Amino acid sequence: MMAAARQAIGIFDSGIGGLTVVKAIVDELPRESIVYFGDTARVPYGTKSKSTIVKFSLENVEFLLRFGVKCIVIACNTSSSWALPTLRKYFKVPIIGVIRPGALAAVRQTRSKRIGVIGTTATIHSRAYESAIHRLDPTVKVFSQSCPLFVPLVEEGWLNGSLCRQVAEKYLEPLKRQRIDTLILGCTHYPLLSKTIQQVLGPGTVLVDSAQQTAAEVRGVLTGTDALRDGLGHPRHRFFVTDEPGHFTRIGHQFLGQVIGSVERANLHV
Amino acid sequence: MMAAARQAIGIFDSGIGGLTVVKAIVDELPRESIVYFGDTARVPYGTKSKSTIVKFSLENVEFLLRFGVKCIVIACNTSSSWALPTLRKYFKVPIIGVIRPGALAAVRQTRSKRIGVIGTTATIHSRAYESAIHRLDPTVKVFSQSCPLFVPLVEEGWLNGSLCRQVAEKYLEPLKRQRIDTLILGCTHYPLLSKTIQQVLGPGTVLVDSAQQTAAEVRGVLTGTDALRDGLGHPRHRFFVTDEPGHFTRIGHQFLGQVIGSVERANLHV
Repeated sequence: MMAAARQAIGIFDSGIGGLTVVKAIVDELPRESIVYFGDTARVPYGTKSKSTIVKFSLENVEFLLRFGVKCIVIACNTSSSWALPTLRKYFKVPIIGVIRPGALAAVRQTRSKRIGVIGTTATIHSRAYESAIHRLDPTVKVFSQSCPLFVPLVEEGWLNGSLCRQVAEKYLEPLKRQRIDTLILGCTHYPLLSKTIQQVLGPGTVLVDSAQQTAAEVRGVLTGTDALRDGLGHPRHRFFVTDEPGHFTRIGHQFLGQVIGSVERANLHV
Repeated sequence: MMAAARQAIGIFDSGIGGLTVVKAIVDELPRESIVYFGDTARVPYGTKSKSTIVKFSLENVEFLLRFGVKCIVIACNTSSSWALPTLRKYFKVPIIGVIRPGALAAVRQTRSKRIGVIGTTATIHSRAYESAIHRLDPTVKVFSQSCPLFVPLVEEGWLNGSLCRQVAEKYLEPLKRQRIDTLILGCTHYPLLSKTIQQVLGPGTVLVDSAQQTAAEVRGVLTGTDALRDGLGHPRHRFFVTDEPGHFTRIGHQFLGQVIGSVERANLHV
């Protein structure tokens, strides 16, 4: 076994939503240590331009590399959409985004070959899901919709109720009319709206999020590089954020599915 | 007349909303040149913590000082709420926030001495308006409400309609029950929701925004330091943003009330 096996998996996100990906990775690979970085001082990324998203993502990877991580997972859909090619060009460490895994899960799922994608403005604008789906199956029809109000709704905690329902209807009706049978939840916040989204689309549409398939891909990459951690005692998870940790610590359990221990403040510019 | 008179007024905001303050200053002082800085790469500030808001605000002032501005206006309510005392401690240039002017306008307006304040989570949490109002009149009762969904609504362009109305009702009903007669729109985005807010509160409540009174205060400061620009030819307005200028240029006219000429990209770290 290589020395890398003892090293942690690095995961970054624009903020807190990436904890849903952490959860899937912990479920899939419970022996792995994790260093999580959430850029809560500069969140959101989904309303920003490509060059800014790429710049921030480069800085985030540099931060994680200080911990000697053996691979990096971009939990953020927006960053995966715009920054992955540049990050792979700049860094040697294996880097895994959430777009291809989400696209793969959706292509495996669809029967009608009509897939919907929802995400931030930047993610939808990048057409990254569309490209990834068409590389897997060029015959699939993809229908995309940005949903800028979904993240604020989740952060406000309005996950159900008539207001949430109305916003969801406004965004999803066009996709429903296209008779999609599969919808990619292309933002880490959206799984928290699953119930409402499912109600609007009806039982005929399957919701797909990237987290589980991304975790499977992380397993694949670590297996392929002989870097899986196995039987080395308890893993250690560390969480870093760029804004004050209070809010992250308080609401993080909603995304992680368990209480977060200590959260440290990251300083990007050292 | 001092040399300072030829210099520009520096104005910063977390993003685009501060253009409503620029508009008021241009109306009040049409001969003054302006350097505007919008931190569009790190927007919003209203969901962030005090230390992050102070750090960003310090960097923004440093950027404006490169242009030798004769005074600085913090157009952002959130930044004015949390960062003004620190900025005044660090820098000699006169610095004007929007909180005291807004409080003054409201205290002059109210008859019932029951004033409502709406703003971002950070602004409301700071209790800055409450303090400013009580310094002017300790007998006024202040009722505050953060409205996290208002900025995303404005940026989505959903300024009217039933959804906007419902969100406004959800936030404003508690203030209405307190029988306020004056409401401070404590965020530069909120004047774009004036119509809906007025409908929800009814004709008995007067909406106050800080922009006009802030412009009056800028005149006062410049007069007091003998730094008013007068009869020196055409003023020059420059706009800088930290994200790509495209979006700012496209939607800025909604806030500024006129087309924005050229917008340049600012580099904070040089």
